[in-house]
Formats: sequence, C-alpha cells, structure tokens
Amino acid sequence: MKHGGCVYKYNNPDGILDYSSNINPIKYDFDLNECKEDLYRYPDIEYTNLKNILAKYLGCSVNSVSVSNGAVELIDAFVSLFKRVVVFTPCFSEYQLRAEVRGKEILKLKLNLNFNLELEELKYINEGDILVLGNPNNPTGKRIEKEKLKLIYEICQKRGAYLLLDEAFYEFSDDYDSIEMFKYKEGVSVIRAATKFFSLPGIRLGYAYVSRDIKEKIDNILLPWTVNSVAVFLAQKFLQDTSYIKNSKEFIKKERAFFLLELKKLKEIYVYDTQSNFILIKLLEHDEDTIFKRMLTRNILIRKCSTFYGLNKNYIRIAIKYRKSNLIFLNAFREALYD
Amino acid sequence: MKHGGCVYKYNNPDGILDYSSNINPIKYDFDLNECKEDLYRYPDIEYTNLKNILAKYLGCSVNSVSVSNGAVELIDAFVSLFKRVVVFTPCFSEYQLRAEVRGKEILKLKLNLNFNLELEELKYINEGDILVLGNPNNPTGKRIEKEKLKLIYEICQKRGAYLLLDEAFYEFSDDYDSIEMFKYKEGVSVIRAATKFFSLPGIRLGYAYVSRDIKEKIDNILLPWTVNSVAVFLAQKFLQDTSYIKNSKEFIKKERAFFLLELKKLKEIYVYDTQSNFILIKLLEHDEDTIFKRMLTRNILIRKCSTFYGLNKNYIRIAIKYRKSNLIFLNAFREALYD
Repeated sequence: MKHGGCVYKYNNPDGILDYSSNINPIKYDFDLNECKEDLYRYPDIEYTNLKNILAKYLGCSVNSVSVSNGAVELIDAFVSLFKRVVVFTPCFSEYQLRAEVRGKEILKLKLNLNFNLELEELKYINEGDILVLGNPNNPTGKRIEKEKLKLIYEICQKRGAYLLLDEAFYEFSDDYDSIEMFKYKEGVSVIRAATKFFSLPGIRLGYAYVSRDIKEKIDNILLPWTVNSVAVFLAQKFLQDTSYIKNSKEFIKKERAFFLLELKKLKEIYVYDTQSNFILIKLLEHDEDTIFKRMLTRNILIRKCSTFYGLNKNYIRIAIKYRKSNLIFLNAFREALYD
Repeated sequence: MKHGGCVYKYNNPDGILDYSSNINPIKYDFDLNECKEDLYRYPDIEYTNLKNILAKYLGCSVNSVSVSNGAVELIDAFVSLFKRVVVFTPCFSEYQLRAEVRGKEILKLKLNLNFNLELEELKYINEGDILVLGNPNNPTGKRIEKEKLKLIYEICQKRGAYLLLDEAFYEFSDDYDSIEMFKYKEGVSVIRAATKFFSLPGIRLGYAYVSRDIKEKIDNILLPWTVNSVAVFLAQKFLQDTSYIKNSKEFIKKERAFFLLELKKLKEIYVYDTQSNFILIKLLEHDEDTIFKRMLTRNILIRKCSTFYGLNKNYIRIAIKYRKSNLIFLNAFREALYD
C-alpha cells in the first residue's frame, strides 16, 4: 500500500472511521446535477474560466496558472523536465515514483531528526536538478519557515536548480503565502490542489502557480482536457466560497490544538507538531502493524508509515476530524496502546 | 485549434449547433447526485469494480484491462515506452503531439488517395517502433478490414514492432471485434473510451485491452487515481446498459445511411464513406475557411481539417446527429455551398 485511504480493501467503506486519509472533514456541499449537461461536451481545452478564478484565488497572473488531473499530474510534468530529482525524506512517495517512471536520477537527502531541512544538505544540489519539497510536508506535517524558504530558493538559484513546492496542504497552515513570495520570480513553482482542503479527492483537481521560464513546457506536457467537467464546475464554486474557506481554517486550527494536546498526554508515543490536518506519531513501545490491527478491530483505519522511505515501522499518521470522531479515536487509541 | 468541439470560443455554447465534435447525439441519462458521496473520498486506486465490469464489456480478462483519464492518457503512456512512433496520416493529431512531448522519433507514413493503408508502406517499420492506427480512423471514418488488420499485426510481429489500435469510435462500427481477435496475443493493444459512443467527453474515461507483455509497464506510467469518481460511477452504469448500447448502434447506422445519401447528392463536394459517427468531406469548389464562416453565420460549427497533418484546406469533418439537426445542417450546407 503506497498510499492512505484504502478503505476499499476493508469491505465496508462507509462503516470504517478512516483516519488514514487526510481530508478536510467539513464536506463542501453542492448539487451535482447542476453540471450534468457539462458532461455531454468536452471541457474547455483552454480552461479559461477556471484559470481566471484560480488566478484570483491564488493571487497571481492568469498566465501563471496551470491545471491538472490531481496534483500528481503536475508533479509528473515537472519531474519530466529535469535531469535529476532531489527530495528530502520522508516525503510523499509520488515524488520518487514519478521520477522513476520518467527514468530520472533521484537524490534522496534526509530531513534531520526533528524532520526539519538542514540548509547544509543543499550543497549536494547541482545544475539541472529539481528540488521537490512538501510544504507542509507529508507525512511530517511541517511547514518550512518563511526565512528559511527564501534561503532555500536563493541556494537553488545559485546552484542552477529548480525549486518545486508541493503545497497540497497549504490552506491548513496560513502563516505566509509562498505564491505571494515567489510570483515574480523564475526557477520556482507552487502546486496546490482541491483534494485535501476542499475535501474532494474524487474530482481530481490540481493547480499551480508556474514560473514563466517553464510555463509553456509544463502546459505542453499536461494532457489535453485533463481536468474533467465536474471538477471545473465545482472549483468555480468552492474557490469563491469565502465562508467555507474561513470556517474550515478556523475549525482545523482549533481541533488540531485540542487533538495534539490530548495525544501529547500519552506516554507511549511521541507526537510531532503539525501545521497541517494530519499528525505524525512515533510509537515508542509498539510497531505500526500491532497498532494498525488493534485499531482496525475497533473499526478505525490508520496510516502505517513504513512505506514512506526514511521511516521505519515505528511511525503512524492520523487525520484530524470532527471532535466527536476524534474522541472515539482517542479512546480506541488509548486502548490499543495498553492492549 | 488542434481539436474540434471548441464551442467555448463562440460565446454561446448552448446556442450553436456543434457539428465539429463527434459525439453520440443520444445522451446517456443519469442522476449525478447518486455519486455525490463518492467525491469526498479517493477513488479505489486499483479500480477493481470498474475493471471487472470493463472486462465483461470488452470480453477479455480483467488482468488485461487498464483505465485512464481519457484515451489520450493511454496513448501518451504507450508512446512513452517505444523508441519511434509510426502513424499513417491523416490521423488524430495527439499520436504525433504526445510523441513529440515524450521526445520520440516520429515516422509519418501516408494513407493512399482513398485514405486506406497500403501494406507495402509497412516496410518502413523497424524494431522498437510502435505503430498507432485509428480504427475507425479520425478524421477519415474508415475502419481497417479484418483480414488486412491480421496481416498488419503479422507484419508488425515479423518486424519487431508493437501495434496499438485506437478504437475510440469502435461501437459505431460493428463488423468485427479486434479485442476478440487479439486477446491472447502479445505485441498488440486496443484503446477505447467513453467519450464518443457513451456521449460523455466531460467525464474523461479511457480504457484498454493491454497485452500482457507490457501491461505492468503501462499501469506504472498511468497516474495514480487517474480516473475520477464520477467516471467510475457512470461507467458502472452505462457499460451494463444494453438497451442504450443497442439503440445507439441502430440509430447511428440508420442516420449515417440517410446523411451520406443526402450529402452525396451535392456536386460541390466529395463524401467519404464512413464506419463512424462523423463524415469527412472534400470541398471541390471552396476552401474550409469559406465554408466554416458561412456555416457559422448560420449558427453551425464544423471542423476544419487542415490542422490534420496530411490534409490541405479542402477538407471538413462533420458529426452525425439527430435527423432534425441533420436536416437543418443539410439546408444550411446547401446554402453555404451556393452562397
């Protein structure tokens, strides 16, 4: 299992409390039949309306916006363009998987023991590289500090490398806006997506601010009509729904504080601080399989993390959901740890 | 404009009679809200249910089925795997475009004056090539005869080349089933799609019978979660709707005969026979721009064909729609030719 959210393997997707998949628990609501007619024709191959709305949402020029079939298509397009892909592990496994598919060299550098990036490590980066960083990073939940990110970009520039930020979890963490920081720069792009924050992994919508030096090349690689008509229709709604966006941000902030506080009371685990909607946990006295099984008997699915390169069998990742669910999770988790 | 169906350029997509986009006019009906909940979770990354239903529909083993974000993702995946891409022009422009994106050599061979493939031309094919053939071919509408297709496959085998059939228009032409012919063979795959026959270009669903010698490589290239949840939901319905399938086939057969008969009465054009739901027309006394403009003033969009490599400005392509529309088209077309 390379990814979380595999509820399909467990017979009854609806009966299970899925803590493995890190999606905003506040479901964005809509009437799907409003876009029924759109399905009978091709989406606009230029995605003009969608890109205009995204430009406003992202705060950049419409000429800098690309759209894709989930963030992973953009990741795939970017890695296709460079000789070598540099990642800091642990990170989202698709950075490496897509680099392998595209026949690229891969350089795996390590985050430090606290899962922070040490600038010193960037000395291994060369011309023709693309450095891909999750920001916040999955599965650690950590966001790069603003001043450090500036330095990372400057070092990349100096060494002739491209910087790609995967910000699929951006909205859960609002201390600075990297598109605002970089929107007049070359050599850096920022990918975001509807999947996590807008709670819609089923529509497969990714988008990005892409720097002008490679914009045309990226758009050339993306498939024609790559975003389906349902994604186009819904994005035009949710990207402009300021109250949904505000409520979701406030909710996650509050619930994250509560959940972290409660988890940190447990002595059998180490809890990493997070700026996202999921929490990485180090199991001090168990391995992931034991806890996974014990939680599954309690009808809760968690994410084992040994499939992330750089993590051993002592890590699990859990989502942040509604208070009621989180209380059920906490009870079950306490039982599982003491079982 | 590389493709048809660009109604978005003409202000009022709903007011225009779109004869440029070749979609089954019988709209498949559904209640989209039935799949609303599916959008809040990732699609099954294995697509188990969808692939089982496709295996039944295509008449092959479930282990031979791949699914994609429109047929074009599968085309892209196939061309990625080979050194050189061989096409017979005129054909669907994406065969060449994706080959260019993937940095492949391209060999363009020519169909003969009647737009049939001459076996003699296959002597240019070498080991490591992939031969991509539309069957029926777009924009010509012609299907390769069964016995000739067998010979093409045998020649490919002898010369060490892979044969890829793009059968996006398969259901409109039912004289033989190429998956039935090839399902135990290696070195040949068949792509089909929901776009044309099931009238749903907006959902972006492609699928294929893929031969076992390259199945794993193809699946590896396709993006994870590449098919959205709406496409999964609808495909499970329409692939099993035998009466929709039967009605659509009968309708197109009948209306195609009528439309061809009427068009052939016009002396200013040459009409190519077609085994699909569109018709290629050679303008004997006009160029495509003149007729395009004259039809547009009559609120009808047609497909200019000079963007197809191998066709000059004397060709247009039109779709086959309902009788009522076709009569409107015929009247407008007669006027446009005599204008």
